[in-house]
Amino acid sequence: MSAKAKGEFDRLREIFARLGPRAGELGDDCALVPLGGTTLALSIDCSVEGVHFRTDWLTFEEIGWRSAASAISDLAAEGATPVGVLASLGMPGGTDHGAELMDGVGAAAQSVGAKVLGGDLVRSEQYLVDVCVLGTAERPVRRAGARPGDGVWVTGRLGGAALALAAYESRTRPGGALRRRYSHPEPRITAGRWLAAHGATAMIDISDGLAADAGHLAAASGVGLEIALERLPCWEDVAPLAAAASGEEFELLVTLPATFNAKADFELTRIGECVRGGGVRLLEGNTPVALPAGYDHFAPS
Amino acid sequence: MSAKAKGEFDRLREIFARLGPRAGELGDDCALVPLGGTTLALSIDCSVEGVHFRTDWLTFEEIGWRSAASAISDLAAEGATPVGVLASLGMPGGTDHGAELMDGVGAAAQSVGAKVLGGDLVRSEQYLVDVCVLGTAERPVRRAGARPGDGVWVTGRLGGAALALAAYESRTRPGGALRRRYSHPEPRITAGRWLAAHGATAMIDISDGLAADAGHLAAASGVGLEIALERLPCWEDVAPLAAAASGEEFELLVTLPATFNAKADFELTRIGECVRGGGVRLLEGNTPVALPAGYDHFAPS
Repeated sequence: MSAKAKGEFDRLREIFARLGPRAGELGDDCALVPLGGTTLALSIDCSVEGVHFRTDWLTFEEIGWRSAASAISDLAAEGATPVGVLASLGMPGGTDHGAELMDGVGAAAQSVGAKVLGGDLVRSEQYLVDVCVLGTAERPVRRAGARPGDGVWVTGRLGGAALALAAYESRTRPGGALRRRYSHPEPRITAGRWLAAHGATAMIDISDGLAADAGHLAAASGVGLEIALERLPCWEDVAPLAAAASGEEFELLVTLPATFNAKADFELTRIGECVRGGGVRLLEGNTPVALPAGYDHFAPS
Repeated sequence: MSAKAKGEFDRLREIFARLGPRAGELGDDCALVPLGGTTLALSIDCSVEGVHFRTDWLTFEEIGWRSAASAISDLAAEGATPVGVLASLGMPGGTDHGAELMDGVGAAAQSVGAKVLGGDLVRSEQYLVDVCVLGTAERPVRRAGARPGDGVWVTGRLGGAALALAAYESRTRPGGALRRRYSHPEPRITAGRWLAAHGATAMIDISDGLAADAGHLAAASGVGLEIALERLPCWEDVAPLAAAASGEEFELLVTLPATFNAKADFELTRIGECVRGGGVRLLEGNTPVALPAGYDHFAPS
């Protein structure tokens, strides 16, 4: 459930609760369906012009990539292996960027070994890209398995997404690695699978910001998380507190047993530990720091 | 691929051709993915306000049901067994009919033994319901297996959808069975599975109208279809030619071996046969009749 607007996930949870037995279990990054000796992981993620992307910031190929990557990131958070994606594309009448959008979706899928399995084209007032992802998970990692004493780790470096967004908003187009980070984010599929195979107890992708997503993981697991801000791996020119608030990071927050000491061939940083209790404490030295608010996309259009 | 606007499927096919090896095989009602000893069937179908539905014609629960049924109908056409659906709901800011829309999606899913596995909520200028369906198919029935000599059969009665649409368009709200036919269409899952188990050689759901979908089946199979208009099972007060043009019928058009003589416990009518050659010939007695144009939804909003 990447890139949800604030409050939206709570609303979705209410709606699913109302469905009762008509609904599967909600509350993880993916739906998990045991089938034929394996477990399917499925998620759907809808990106809408003016809410999740702007056509004056990104090309249509980039919009397609980003939208697909957002859905694929949910598979990464389960430690799943992508199989395929289905994408519905909405476009205003008289325009046709379907091929570019689907090129981006297809390239993002291909980057993680998946295919575009199906699609739909509709006429809509805004551009929209809705992507449903399918994967398999030998050993799915949920949000709920963290135990007191587990270490808290994060992949990659945080804050690039917020920095790129700030640049776009101030009409300073980001360049180089920063632009690529924003326009072609790479879901951490390889890292997710490696972490699942190395004993990850709980995992979530960072879509609402580290602090907010740590809160989701803590709540699902019934533990507290203490995170040392000085240990946060930050994007160049981003302060730790800003990095902790930056959403749509496409990185993984994961808990691993205290005994974990394997060497990953990707960036993986221990930033804290799980404790008894609940909630998230961000620490500067021994001093708790106020939680930054969760990422809220840009203002309503 | 139910309820596509005219020309849209050709455009989608072009886009998929451009993806090359990044895309799975397109051209059937569902994507078919062999996995773990079974075959997964997947499809995605996006319904948009003003294109596929109107909020002054249907309740939000009905819109949710119809949108989900449209996607589920693609599973019926493969002879697949539904497992679950994922639904993205788009709603204008300041409105909230998410629970009603999802109730309708959930009820349609439940009616065929499936669950709502996941969802997304987004803010959008129009209401939209995008539904991705997942099923399994022991013996998937494609569009491409019809052979000369096979009989051509259709489930149910045709023309109710066009009649209901005409009533709404003339501001005469349909009632009773006709309203229910339009507001709560029933995907032919049981029929599709039965037909698959009884040797169906090719199958398609009637979304563009019998004549147009017969053309799709004929093209995919490389055969001609001769259909006797006087044999068409028609909705009360609908003439055969109008029934043959009526789209979004949620019935199945199926080819079966000439020797087929099993007794179905649902309405199943032999309406013609497959011949060498190509294309579709609608016959009144021995006289060919011009093909009605495919269903084109209502005019652009």
